[in-house]
Amino acid sequence: MEMLTCYNCNMIIVLNEFLMLFTCVKSPCIFVIYILYYLQLFILKFLVYLKNYKTDSFMTVQKKIARLREIMEREGLDAYIVSGTDPHNSEYLPEAWQQREWISGFTGSFGTVVVTKEDAGLWTDSRYFIQAKEQLAGTGVCLHKLRIPGAIDYPEWLSEKLQSGCRVGMDSFCMSVQEVDHLKKVLSAKNIELVGKADLLGEIWLDRPALPASSVCLLEEKYAGESALSKIAVIQDKLKECQADYFLFSCLDEIAWLFNIRCHDIAYNPVAISYAVVGKEKSWFFIKPSKLSAEVVCALEGNRIEIRDYHHLFLFFDELGKDVHFLADLHTLNYAIYNRLVSSFKVTDTISPVILNKAVKNRVEIEGFRKACIKDGVAMTRFFLWLEQELGFRPISETEAAEKLSELRAACPDYVSDSFHTISAYGKNAALPHYSAIPGKDAILKKKGLYLVDSGGQYVYGTTDITRTIPLGELTQQEKEDYTLVLKGMIALARCVFPKGTTGANIDVVARQPLWNNKMNYGHGTGHGVGHFLCVHEGPQDIRQAWRAQAILPGMVTSDEPGMYRENSHGIRHENLIVCQELGENEFGEWCGFETITLCYFDTSALLIELLSEDDKKWLNVYHSQVFEKIAPYLTESEKVWLQKKTEKI
Amino acid sequence: MEMLTCYNCNMIIVLNEFLMLFTCVKSPCIFVIYILYYLQLFILKFLVYLKNYKTDSFMTVQKKIARLREIMEREGLDAYIVSGTDPHNSEYLPEAWQQREWISGFTGSFGTVVVTKEDAGLWTDSRYFIQAKEQLAGTGVCLHKLRIPGAIDYPEWLSEKLQSGCRVGMDSFCMSVQEVDHLKKVLSAKNIELVGKADLLGEIWLDRPALPASSVCLLEEKYAGESALSKIAVIQDKLKECQADYFLFSCLDEIAWLFNIRCHDIAYNPVAISYAVVGKEKSWFFIKPSKLSAEVVCALEGNRIEIRDYHHLFLFFDELGKDVHFLADLHTLNYAIYNRLVSSFKVTDTISPVILNKAVKNRVEIEGFRKACIKDGVAMTRFFLWLEQELGFRPISETEAAEKLSELRAACPDYVSDSFHTISAYGKNAALPHYSAIPGKDAILKKKGLYLVDSGGQYVYGTTDITRTIPLGELTQQEKEDYTLVLKGMIALARCVFPKGTTGANIDVVARQPLWNNKMNYGHGTGHGVGHFLCVHEGPQDIRQAWRAQAILPGMVTSDEPGMYRENSHGIRHENLIVCQELGENEFGEWCGFETITLCYFDTSALLIELLSEDDKKWLNVYHSQVFEKIAPYLTESEKVWLQKKTEKI
Repeated sequence: MEMLTCYNCNMIIVLNEFLMLFTCVKSPCIFVIYILYYLQLFILKFLVYLKNYKTDSFMTVQKKIARLREIMEREGLDAYIVSGTDPHNSEYLPEAWQQREWISGFTGSFGTVVVTKEDAGLWTDSRYFIQAKEQLAGTGVCLHKLRIPGAIDYPEWLSEKLQSGCRVGMDSFCMSVQEVDHLKKVLSAKNIELVGKADLLGEIWLDRPALPASSVCLLEEKYAGESALSKIAVIQDKLKECQADYFLFSCLDEIAWLFNIRCHDIAYNPVAISYAVVGKEKSWFFIKPSKLSAEVVCALEGNRIEIRDYHHLFLFFDELGKDVHFLADLHTLNYAIYNRLVSSFKVTDTISPVILNKAVKNRVEIEGFRKACIKDGVAMTRFFLWLEQELGFRPISETEAAEKLSELRAACPDYVSDSFHTISAYGKNAALPHYSAIPGKDAILKKKGLYLVDSGGQYVYGTTDITRTIPLGELTQQEKEDYTLVLKGMIALARCVFPKGTTGANIDVVARQPLWNNKMNYGHGTGHGVGHFLCVHEGPQDIRQAWRAQAILPGMVTSDEPGMYRENSHGIRHENLIVCQELGENEFGEWCGFETITLCYFDTSALLIELLSEDDKKWLNVYHSQVFEKIAPYLTESEKVWLQKKTEKI
Repeated sequence: MEMLTCYNCNMIIVLNEFLMLFTCVKSPCIFVIYILYYLQLFILKFLVYLKNYKTDSFMTVQKKIARLREIMEREGLDAYIVSGTDPHNSEYLPEAWQQREWISGFTGSFGTVVVTKEDAGLWTDSRYFIQAKEQLAGTGVCLHKLRIPGAIDYPEWLSEKLQSGCRVGMDSFCMSVQEVDHLKKVLSAKNIELVGKADLLGEIWLDRPALPASSVCLLEEKYAGESALSKIAVIQDKLKECQADYFLFSCLDEIAWLFNIRCHDIAYNPVAISYAVVGKEKSWFFIKPSKLSAEVVCALEGNRIEIRDYHHLFLFFDELGKDVHFLADLHTLNYAIYNRLVSSFKVTDTISPVILNKAVKNRVEIEGFRKACIKDGVAMTRFFLWLEQELGFRPISETEAAEKLSELRAACPDYVSDSFHTISAYGKNAALPHYSAIPGKDAILKKKGLYLVDSGGQYVYGTTDITRTIPLGELTQQEKEDYTLVLKGMIALARCVFPKGTTGANIDVVARQPLWNNKMNYGHGTGHGVGHFLCVHEGPQDIRQAWRAQAILPGMVTSDEPGMYRENSHGIRHENLIVCQELGENEFGEWCGFETITLCYFDTSALLIELLSEDDKKWLNVYHSQVFEKIAPYLTESEKVWLQKKTEKI
């Protein structure tokens, strides 16, 4: 019997889980299997503990890799892949699954580590070349650059490095079906075997944090705009349509949206570590039961959702009869679960209907976004006022500024957390689009040049993401020109009118044209979808040069964030959230446009007015009058006066 | 032994081909096979002749379909597919391969006819809905609309209509590998058999024209800019790289470009009906030998190209040993040949390197395009002057205008033919983007409203494609606004600056924005590639909303042709050719832009000047000064005065 790996090395947790059994298992046969499983797990963990208890818990990367190689030797592996995701294909991970960071010290959000007997390498893309170089220095882990001409990804690298007959290990819970399929194809061509070895790092990562245990709360229908029952019914219709029995969900934001629940298991992302299965009559929610209050359990059961332990998904599969037909989205499902499913059932790859339904916000959700943007705008206004006032008296660090902004956001009672780690970047630091200030090593803001702050909040009725770049004092002509051209691009996209069916790749250029005309560009996308009190990065739509067939549909919330980065000088990004709206139909088709919902002034003193068109100016003046109108009611008199000046007509 | 079908029903031609044998076959064994083949063919054709000689040659569509059904009955077929292409995947076809037109009477450039025992249907897209409806009226052939919501293409329709166990016939020479693969997949799911039955129509199409027999001429290197040997060497490098023996080419424009030959086998397209095979040391050119003069044969042989008869491709395959490795582009190869190849050899699907090399024009070719555009501009100028003068005295029909334009183009000694059938459309006729004037039924031009003319020429140094919409008298405000907005779009694309690697789908919106902003649009692409003294529509790049991964690269010649069509009122299209040019490199990457090469004035009297930006006006004034400068030297004094007025600054 294959079992889900317990990612917690802590014996106490294993013991606790064992005791939990008594509360949830009904069949005696299954009960015996459970007991044997936990007994074996406990003995294993105890042996590992005995062997390792004297080792230092602050191992260097070199030592960690040496340890991993010992285990590889024992397991007969010539290479081991440490992927950058978790069993749920998450972008942000709980600490227990930050395996790539632990083994290599690299903290970026994208990358894969591969360790062979002789080599260790990290594969990542241009966003992280500088950071990875610094963080890997002296570790013996070599940086392999992706998405550059001649780039060789790790599957091809492995196939080149290894001899025929070699064995490559991977944690198949932390690899997607698509990734493994590609790997298999590349490696099998050279007769290299791919072996699923879950959680090899568990043996050496002694101080590994436990999986998060935050409490789940319900998202009321007055915020969600649709009941969980109604959302589940759509999936059940899909089951009927495909003559299938179950739809398996493994993406955490899909599950949170589907069941109208939220949690704090992952920083910035209000999701719960869980799996979900929707059947024709009822659903199953696989989650650590201690995370659920009686009230939550009651509400879930009212929606015909049965609770099972997070680690008992495979046991659930064991309970099912033959001739079962599963639907699952193989773009995101992990390979271990897929492998288990296909060994017993018919599995049909089906794009999760939740993805599009979640992306197209309903009226209640959009109203929530608008409300969140007002609260956010108030915090942003107070932040810039504070900054302007404080800077006159004392130096302020990037970190202090970011902390102040979080504090101002937190003043709103509906604020839950930030929606991502604030990018607080002064001067040349802002030229790194994914800059992360480190306390003590960060820059000190001076009354000169540009300061970029990209941040957002999670409110119970919506998620925000906003970037402003503001002058702290005198600017160069080039800074002003760059500032103006980026703003022209942002305005152009916000004003864009397009026929229904238009994709993000079709309109991305609208934001880039003012820059392209001056032979300038930015190396990131122009817009990403934003979840409703969920992940700040959400598909299936985006606005970028690369093709995605998904049209930008009415109700979708997307960011509009062109930028411009001059190495060692300055960086500029202007970002608002925009909601796609229907603009009616005529003989040429159905028309869509955007409503800008973010509410915060742009500093007009940094503009070269002569570069703005009449339409640009008109847009900016209308926007500023809306910002004042909607934010002012929440401000003190002196704050109002200040904002009125900032939003004056140009 | 499978043989290439002889598409000529004429016995004399079969006899002639038989006699030709003596001049080209060397081995006695092959000779005997050839004799038997022709004997069999001759007897077959004679029998068909005896059976049919009394039938009328002007059969109605209904009668043709009834005859086809008799043959289907005899062959045990429940359906037969009449495709819309030829064995070379051509867009324009010689008459002998216009099978779809012959069986249905439909003259559009895209569509498939399917005949079953009870039904007959034509599948085509929105460009031809109106035309197909008219042409199919009373024929019993039903119109099936494609690319509309809920559209069902013929494979799916067949699978719905037919019972399990049915047999569907097709001419596998006139179907691409991809099309057949899809068909097979759809039909086999319902246990319907797909049967290759070449040329069933041949038996009933008694007055079928012979395959064209035009002479081949060489394209001198002073026009081509690269020798055939050098082009062939690139293919041979590809063979080496792929460890393959032969590259098979079936697309006529690819062969013409590769061997630096031109011909007149297809109206508007200067290509020769042929196949080509490039081997590691030499090449083979499969073409009717009578089309080649001694001089051409000598030049080809000098390039190590052996001549074989067009119909002897399969015999060539028979001569090859085992363990042969072919490369072929399965996007365009016909299924019959593919089927023959895979039965004996290893075949690797390889995108033809000719496609991109042909699309990226060399300096000599671009210089030729510029020259062709001057000649074309002179003809266009004279045409509009003639029209203005004549219209004062007498009515002129759309057809007469088109003929006059061809005549003026033909006055240039380097003119070879038009590059496509001129669209000469007055008033509401221009609202049909693919309008074709029929003599007698066409409109008469009056001194009022807009006249659209979309035309082009084949010159020995380049191909042109130009659309102008001109006012013949008073215009409405809406006509002027539409005229101006379309021109704004055309100018915006012509001025577009973009980083290397940008695709057509990324920049298509640039031409559409002035229209989209006013909730107007056009239902066709903005630009297509143009061949060099070759097909006026050429891949692999285009500029449209749909995605094609091919970037617009320096050297590519593309059209820039936004439009606007108001049903029953008027249609506007402005079209120039643009060449992608390198604009240098900076810290943000490599930059590209367009050089406009078409040279003909736009009538500024139709413009609403207030809708133009300063940049629009500047572009138009610079363009007009270039038009005058380059065209005037070829004009008479009075023509010059007229053009000077037309190109005056705004």
